[in-house]
Amino acid sequence: MHLSEITHPNQLHGLSIRQLQQIASQIREKHLQTVATSGGHLGPGLGVVELTLALYQTLDLDCDKVIWDVGHQAYPHKLITDRYHNFNTLRQKDGVAGYLKRCESKFDHFGAGHASTSISAALGMALARDMKGEKFKAVAVIGDGALTGGMALEAINHAGHLPKTNLLVVLNDNEMSISPNVGAISRHLNKMRLSPPVQFISDNIKEQVKQLPFVGDSLSPELGRLREGMKRLAVPKVGAVFEELGFTYIGPVDGHNLEELIATFQQAHQHTGPVLVHVSTIKGKGYAIAEQDQVGYHAQSPFNLTSGKANPSTKPKPPGYSKVFAHALVKLAENNPKIIGITAAMATGTGLDKLQAKLPNQYIDVGIAEQHAVTLAAGLACEGMRPVVAIYSTFLQRGYDQIVHDVCIQKLPVFFCLDRAGIVGADGPTHQGMYDISYLRCLPNMVLMAPKDEAELQRMIVTGVNYTDGPIAMRYPRGNGYGVPLMEEGWEPLPIGKAEILRHGDDILLLGYGSMVYPSMQVAEILSEHGIQATVVNARFAKPLDTELILPLAKQIGRVVTLEEGCLIGGFGSAVAEALLDADVVVPVKRIGVPDILVDHAEPDESKADLGLTTPQMAEQILNAFFSRQPSVLNS
Amino acid sequence: MHLSEITHPNQLHGLSIRQLQQIASQIREKHLQTVATSGGHLGPGLGVVELTLALYQTLDLDCDKVIWDVGHQAYPHKLITDRYHNFNTLRQKDGVAGYLKRCESKFDHFGAGHASTSISAALGMALARDMKGEKFKAVAVIGDGALTGGMALEAINHAGHLPKTNLLVVLNDNEMSISPNVGAISRHLNKMRLSPPVQFISDNIKEQVKQLPFVGDSLSPELGRLREGMKRLAVPKVGAVFEELGFTYIGPVDGHNLEELIATFQQAHQHTGPVLVHVSTIKGKGYAIAEQDQVGYHAQSPFNLTSGKANPSTKPKPPGYSKVFAHALVKLAENNPKIIGITAAMATGTGLDKLQAKLPNQYIDVGIAEQHAVTLAAGLACEGMRPVVAIYSTFLQRGYDQIVHDVCIQKLPVFFCLDRAGIVGADGPTHQGMYDISYLRCLPNMVLMAPKDEAELQRMIVTGVNYTDGPIAMRYPRGNGYGVPLMEEGWEPLPIGKAEILRHGDDILLLGYGSMVYPSMQVAEILSEHGIQATVVNARFAKPLDTELILPLAKQIGRVVTLEEGCLIGGFGSAVAEALLDADVVVPVKRIGVPDILVDHAEPDESKADLGLTTPQMAEQILNAFFSRQPSVLNS
Repeated sequence: MHLSEITHPNQLHGLSIRQLQQIASQIREKHLQTVATSGGHLGPGLGVVELTLALYQTLDLDCDKVIWDVGHQAYPHKLITDRYHNFNTLRQKDGVAGYLKRCESKFDHFGAGHASTSISAALGMALARDMKGEKFKAVAVIGDGALTGGMALEAINHAGHLPKTNLLVVLNDNEMSISPNVGAISRHLNKMRLSPPVQFISDNIKEQVKQLPFVGDSLSPELGRLREGMKRLAVPKVGAVFEELGFTYIGPVDGHNLEELIATFQQAHQHTGPVLVHVSTIKGKGYAIAEQDQVGYHAQSPFNLTSGKANPSTKPKPPGYSKVFAHALVKLAENNPKIIGITAAMATGTGLDKLQAKLPNQYIDVGIAEQHAVTLAAGLACEGMRPVVAIYSTFLQRGYDQIVHDVCIQKLPVFFCLDRAGIVGADGPTHQGMYDISYLRCLPNMVLMAPKDEAELQRMIVTGVNYTDGPIAMRYPRGNGYGVPLMEEGWEPLPIGKAEILRHGDDILLLGYGSMVYPSMQVAEILSEHGIQATVVNARFAKPLDTELILPLAKQIGRVVTLEEGCLIGGFGSAVAEALLDADVVVPVKRIGVPDILVDHAEPDESKADLGLTTPQMAEQILNAFFSRQPSVLNS
Repeated sequence: MHLSEITHPNQLHGLSIRQLQQIASQIREKHLQTVATSGGHLGPGLGVVELTLALYQTLDLDCDKVIWDVGHQAYPHKLITDRYHNFNTLRQKDGVAGYLKRCESKFDHFGAGHASTSISAALGMALARDMKGEKFKAVAVIGDGALTGGMALEAINHAGHLPKTNLLVVLNDNEMSISPNVGAISRHLNKMRLSPPVQFISDNIKEQVKQLPFVGDSLSPELGRLREGMKRLAVPKVGAVFEELGFTYIGPVDGHNLEELIATFQQAHQHTGPVLVHVSTIKGKGYAIAEQDQVGYHAQSPFNLTSGKANPSTKPKPPGYSKVFAHALVKLAENNPKIIGITAAMATGTGLDKLQAKLPNQYIDVGIAEQHAVTLAAGLACEGMRPVVAIYSTFLQRGYDQIVHDVCIQKLPVFFCLDRAGIVGADGPTHQGMYDISYLRCLPNMVLMAPKDEAELQRMIVTGVNYTDGPIAMRYPRGNGYGVPLMEEGWEPLPIGKAEILRHGDDILLLGYGSMVYPSMQVAEILSEHGIQATVVNARFAKPLDTELILPLAKQIGRVVTLEEGCLIGGFGSAVAEALLDADVVVPVKRIGVPDILVDHAEPDESKADLGLTTPQMAEQILNAFFSRQPSVLNS
């Protein structure tokens, strides 16, 4: 059987190990070819090919449910659940998603994109199953990185307390999140990988234990305890931790040995209650270049399979925002030992790996633990340090209560740097950075800013680091800047809450925020071609808003447009509307931004076109809203 | 020395055990008298009197920093840190806060109110200390309930990975959160409390181990491992879990034995790296009535010290919202086995204890684990169950990413019931339910509603349980209803997104949301006395807004006021403003609600008066905004 013939994973049933190995090869081949062509996650999927096949051979996928954590390792799953033939559309508009989606396949039982959710979801399904008297198996597959996220630990704590609820947690331990893991849990998992598999030890040791003199019936209480402890000695240390938490622990098992995996999963299915199977895998397995550079090949843009090198761009690109951010932060940190960069397992994505390389003592990676990252920063701020928390817009949602409760209420000077704010492209709905303006703007003491380009990003970093009155957050987009000249010195902080006027015109007021400032200027050009002259303001701050500048302009010009790359509800445009109404400036306001829908995966430009956010589309909307209906205005 | 003479905790230095016991008695006396008079948290503080005194005797509080988790157990701390003499103002406006506040005392190093933050904050301070080359001790005191919160586990994982960073975590293990704890961690802590203290075992067992035949140098690898494991045998099981996670574990120690506590803390301070001291305490210790009813006396309204009974109210009160909620939910759940109530360790506060008592199989307490609660509910919803997640407005912030990522993006029908939405009174800023409208309204697929009174609450529960198109959230206030007749049968769901007109008038449109609907009617009465006739609308839904009803009214009447008990930024009033502007209905809108400040602890009525939210104040604001400036309008 060839992989291309598999449309239902139950077709794996009855295949021999040799046949499964062939399927595994075909999965790797298709996986590599596809990602080399279209880009996507590489290492995570290659590491779980055998795990996926072995697990699915022991399940009935017509009823059993597998919940993949994060979902970036689920390409092998997709290839055997009827998505082989359109897999070449991976991460493209209307194509196969890069993560899991319930609406894409009946085999995607729970969508994901963020880490650490799978055990909670699988446990919910397991509890529902038992309430309904059904019989299916509920399985969560979670990485060792994701296991350190607080919610996964909350779920372990809950599941371990339910001895009658059958739940299988498969720990895909590749010793990595995107970067090598940090934290005590990972260290102990690693220690365990070096131990012989548990089955071997326990068989071997049983005999020896029998021969010990104190294994009799008339023991002192202490020796009784000693004997009881013997059972745990047979289990390497971390296994004991899971056992203590109520799980039956099995492993570690070689994640690339199909025979061993199948036997282990079959064994696991025999147990009642929560079971954890610890599988040792190699990220990037089967593609030597990825095995050797596991961080670099976690995900890839299109690349050459033989050399492993990224395909050359057709033209040189300006530096990305993350890179400019990292460069500026390192430069500032070199002169200020109080600056501490904090990441939650996203060193490369945020660019903080540059800080780690240059100033390791001013760098903290807390693992996938955004909640802890925020409150740790609050603690640092209490002691006069300048914590810079670099977390993607969408992941910062994980630390929301900590931002409210530990930072804003205490007015502590923590600087939040929100990368990937706005439309992110191929990663899809779970990664779109749409809500940060709304969820942060409502919090007292918070300052919000967004740069118009990469040079202003530099100045805002200086601004954030220098602002000591309380929390301050900066949002900036995924991708490349405009290629404007970067400052090498003389960095001055911006005045808090002050906007700048970029263009003067009497007919309409365009208020752009962050990544929408340049488009606002382009819109103004188009309007100008229609004889309409716009004033364009770079708002810089969504909070505090520069009402001193904006209100008189709005009153005088009488027509206001706001432009932002974020959800319209409660966003920058709402801030403007609120300010105008509060000041009794009753003028029409057109808010342009992302409407109240989920934005699917696609190229960012495709998403923008779908959302009506290209420059011509926005100009047209403005013409329709303000001028077509009142043509006379144009002549006034 | 009498407690009243202690203005600095270092005055405890050098006191004898007998003297400390006297201080302990005086703390209990003052604590009990104060809470009996003014109300407040009772059991938590009484349980840590000796812990506090012993710990502080081993520290130099001029430099060492103690971070109390939650802070509701910090009354003894307050009584020895210069707040004895104004302690009678506890939880009153401008008086001593019920939780910790950095601005209240230099000894309150980190404010709290929510659980599980202390280890992160203390670790941040410890890291800053080492970076600055300072020497103070950083201590987190955390309860066994709070320890199961994900962020505490994230912090343990991080701290355990830093063997050179001195950090003391004191585990105050009273076997309770507010209710008895759930979860595997708590079960094992409890198991451990029954074990003899670790010091005793290890001394005792050392001798015996020496005599074992295999303790030599020429061991097989398995026996070597066996010997290595011996160390762990001396430590009861849960200690081993902490040791595995990189902590030096000491305990359990009797939390009411000053001598033992002092010796243990002194020993703990000798260690390098993270240390956990496990202290067994009794919640309510020293007040027999509270020891016997630990749930009931977690916190108390004013009560009689001898009988333990709450002081009788001056007049009978209508039922509280939580009670009506619980009653209605139980009634619906009795007829629908798919309804599952979920709480995160707030069974009594939310009223879900009623569901637990009546239908234990339809009740889940996940512990202090809001993230897990939300995604567990998502998993249940996938299987067709009707999860009802009852979490206070402010605590739901903990599950924010899960609401976005697991519920809204997947459009799963989870029903969120947000108790304590709006002004909460004596609990202060950490507990004010101010932000939920803003942080939920921006999320696609979310429906938001709020009842005007307790009878409408009943109907909204039916509405929420019957709504299967996606997530729906209901917010309702702390406290009592209006005493309106409750429905006993014939409960019909409300149409989604439909408002109701309560009063007709041509001069102004008042749009009230939730708890502000009755006040809106009262405001209308006052306006009427001034000859101004208001239309009053009970909005019912903040999302979707009933634009069909509201827009024509706004256009026709020309003056709009919104009234809500929540933050103005991004809230209900913003929703109205957005809708009007989007529809090109350009009319003045006055938004009444909570401005962009933190609301301190006080009686709710005092807070409302401070915020300008009493009925006469709101009427006056409306008169000023719309009518004083244009007196002619009144005659039109």
